[in-house]
Amino acid sequence: MGSPSSLKLGVQICGVGYGWGEWRHPDVPADASISLNFYRQQAQLAEAGRLDFLFIADSLHIHEKSNPHYLNRFEPLTLLSALATVTEHIGLVATASVSYTEPFNLARQLASLDHLSGGRAGWNVVTSWLSGTADNFGKAEHPPHRVRYYMAREHLSVVKGLWDSWEDDAFVRDKPSGEFFLPSKLHRLDHNGEFFRVKGPLNIARSPQGQPVIFQGGTSVEGREFAAGHADVVFLNPESLTEAQWRYQDIKGRAACLGRNLQQVQVLANIRPVVGRTASEVEQRYQHICQFITLEDALVTLGRPFNDHDFSRYPLDEPFPDVGDLGREHLQGHSEHIKQVARDEKLTLRQTAWRFALPQREFTGTPEQLADRLEHWFQQGAADGFVINPWPGGLQHFVELVIPELQRRGLFRREYSGHTLRDHLQLSTPINRYAPRRELI
Amino acid sequence: MGSPSSLKLGVQICGVGYGWGEWRHPDVPADASISLNFYRQQAQLAEAGRLDFLFIADSLHIHEKSNPHYLNRFEPLTLLSALATVTEHIGLVATASVSYTEPFNLARQLASLDHLSGGRAGWNVVTSWLSGTADNFGKAEHPPHRVRYYMAREHLSVVKGLWDSWEDDAFVRDKPSGEFFLPSKLHRLDHNGEFFRVKGPLNIARSPQGQPVIFQGGTSVEGREFAAGHADVVFLNPESLTEAQWRYQDIKGRAACLGRNLQQVQVLANIRPVVGRTASEVEQRYQHICQFITLEDALVTLGRPFNDHDFSRYPLDEPFPDVGDLGREHLQGHSEHIKQVARDEKLTLRQTAWRFALPQREFTGTPEQLADRLEHWFQQGAADGFVINPWPGGLQHFVELVIPELQRRGLFRREYSGHTLRDHLQLSTPINRYAPRRELI
Ligand SMILES: Cc1cc2nc3c(=O)[nH]c(=O)nc-3n(C[C@H](O)[C@H](O)[C@H](O)COP(=O)(O)O)c2cc1C
Ligand SMILES: Cc1cc2nc3c(=O)[nH]c(=O)nc-3n(C[C@H](O)[C@H](O)[C@H](O)COP(=O)(O)O)c2cc1C
Repeated sequence: MGSPSSLKLGVQICGVGYGWGEWRHPDVPADASISLNFYRQQAQLAEAGRLDFLFIADSLHIHEKSNPHYLNRFEPLTLLSALATVTEHIGLVATASVSYTEPFNLARQLASLDHLSGGRAGWNVVTSWLSGTADNFGKAEHPPHRVRYYMAREHLSVVKGLWDSWEDDAFVRDKPSGEFFLPSKLHRLDHNGEFFRVKGPLNIARSPQGQPVIFQGGTSVEGREFAAGHADVVFLNPESLTEAQWRYQDIKGRAACLGRNLQQVQVLANIRPVVGRTASEVEQRYQHICQFITLEDALVTLGRPFNDHDFSRYPLDEPFPDVGDLGREHLQGHSEHIKQVARDEKLTLRQTAWRFALPQREFTGTPEQLADRLEHWFQQGAADGFVINPWPGGLQHFVELVIPELQRRGLFRREYSGHTLRDHLQLSTPINRYAPRRELI
Repeated sequence: MGSPSSLKLGVQICGVGYGWGEWRHPDVPADASISLNFYRQQAQLAEAGRLDFLFIADSLHIHEKSNPHYLNRFEPLTLLSALATVTEHIGLVATASVSYTEPFNLARQLASLDHLSGGRAGWNVVTSWLSGTADNFGKAEHPPHRVRYYMAREHLSVVKGLWDSWEDDAFVRDKPSGEFFLPSKLHRLDHNGEFFRVKGPLNIARSPQGQPVIFQGGTSVEGREFAAGHADVVFLNPESLTEAQWRYQDIKGRAACLGRNLQQVQVLANIRPVVGRTASEVEQRYQHICQFITLEDALVTLGRPFNDHDFSRYPLDEPFPDVGDLGREHLQGHSEHIKQVARDEKLTLRQTAWRFALPQREFTGTPEQLADRLEHWFQQGAADGFVINPWPGGLQHFVELVIPELQRRGLFRREYSGHTLRDHLQLSTPINRYAPRRELI
């Protein structure tokens, strides 16, 4: 299961890339977002690096200005099911929205993925922030930020309830006697809440992990409170060690107040490293990436947390514009953060755009430098591990250069020892709510 | 692409089996419904037999008396995505309900499967007939039979509309110029109908088949009219050659009235063959299957089209009970058919139950007899092909014994010549509704 002091590491695989211009980089196939070959190759690479999981982000609303990757990509649950049969160990984490999926269908697809993969499924619970999403689902309006988190709690509790429909030993399957299952081990949820009414039971057995692993990345107060209370793995997006430390403490503190075992709440920082064998290779890679980030792209990226707001209409060299409450109802935590940084550091719009679009120097370096940085963050209470969101070609650099260095330092496994995603992340298997309590002797 | 005179052949893969007692047969693993190994092995066997497609049935509501397979099975879209990477040619057909899935999510998952599989996806459009399904989806009531078919038309038209969001050549992906797509080739659906309001566009490119293949198996008048108008492949469930002939004519006639090209409407009969090398092996297999069908199971099977009605409460040896309109709102076509057969043939309840639970003698025999029967049905205008719903071990018998005989007769392909499910079924690729019309010269 790896020593308790070892880092947790996942990777986001994101087709042609997270930024608007990355698809033009020579190290990414221009059709990567819709290429099974690309995803298979990246997944197998991540598995060769012994990573804990790969993660597929998602959204449900596009328009002409959307990121090339968002326009035309695989749906996460079908993609991960396909990858389940071409990988053996690595965890498979799908983003899915509580605002626009039926809990019954989603609980079932995630459980199905957990069965298909032998216990490697995870769910990144998101609330969807682009208000245009409502128009694809016949909803009169996108639910307000606060309501989305109420819905998230209820949705998640329904899904978890459905996952417990069958006790672990419900299926006897005894051919001679004809007993297929034990009716006493089948449970109906009978949920009747504010947003969802779901009777159950679910038509699939409890899955190999008991329940798929819950991931969450909310950054607003509501989001962090939800994550601290309900997620097994919390994603953070910190810019600096200091910010990471307070965010880490914030999540762990909230989790402790909510009575959770802190070993069972892993906090991972999302980073975009740039790695090279030598200082000059590092710098060359850094500059090469920068070539594919135009100011126009940087402005569009900046607009995304603000419900895809068009920042190109403001003067570039004046202070970051006053956009009022914009963003609060959307990607609240991140949009507030941008406003605050711009204000505190007295940035112009141009400076703000570049600031959030260019690679962070913090995770730019040689394998030793990167490993130093990851180790430092880990030991200084900034993160239990990291999610790598690679630049073009970056997963290969990370696996080939940084992983061996982390292994040498005893910070990361050399071989998988467990089978499930819970094993990799040292998360215990949740006991079925209906299981008879074992007497303590 | 196979000669125009060749049979179409698919197989339903159904875990521990379609009947209530089949799971006890020694030729089926007791956990087949939730075993990736089982599905992989059956899919690869079907592909070795050069079948056109494999088909996964589905339903969304269970209770204690449900068929063992229904209680605990994979969800079709995740299962087929997993099978996409362990097969190369065979079509992958998923059942999904128009009554309980969001058109945006379903359109996307089916398109994603079509991309993942290189153009092998199909959708069996069903309306869901068990009224208890509504309770899993927070619906006040299960929509009435007629309304379900209105919803089906609208749902399907939304899904097809979303599949055309992008013209086939919309993605240019030209790295030097930075042109990723042509905005003029992106289209918003802006659907605002009675049941669904969906703006679009879909966030995935038009798929390799243009659109996944549409399957439908409704048997009521509304169901047949819908299938004839909208399905590429129509499933029938006939009991005899005569019934098959009129059903076949009915579909083709309706399709002709609706102005469709009849080459593009394939009608397949669903059959459950029993095959053996010799007459005595056939009889032994037949009797072996019968051992696993109890009267109790037969009564439960009988109840299913009547909204899982409990027939065990009626006297067994009196005429089939008068259940009034029961079934009309559920599996209308099939329940009406059962009532009519029982009335016409003056059957008791016991006789009716056996009649619909035991293997049909029509498709029981040696490979030559089976091939004769299939050929006869095909040539007598009863079916363009068949969907095999195998008894335990039956797919292997069919592939090893019957397929070679059909190949010898030139009735079935020896090798796949096309790549997509449309190729196998000789269905043309739908032209995108927004594509500029080519001028005829
Ligand atoms: C690493 C990471 C990955 C995320 N992935 C997604 C995603 O795939 N889809 C999505 O809609 N939101 C995603 N989010 C956003 C969060 O789930 C959340 O919606 C967002 O932070 C807004 O939350 P807030 O309103 O609480 O600030 C991600 C966040 C982080 C930190
Ligand atoms: C071969 C075949 C397969 C079918 N598969 C399914 C299925 O997987 N799920 C389902 O709900 N209905 C299935 N049906 C039922 C039909 O889609 C349809 O709902 C049913 O015949 C009731 O239609 P009716 O009310 O028009 O008679 C199937 C029918 C046939 C003939």
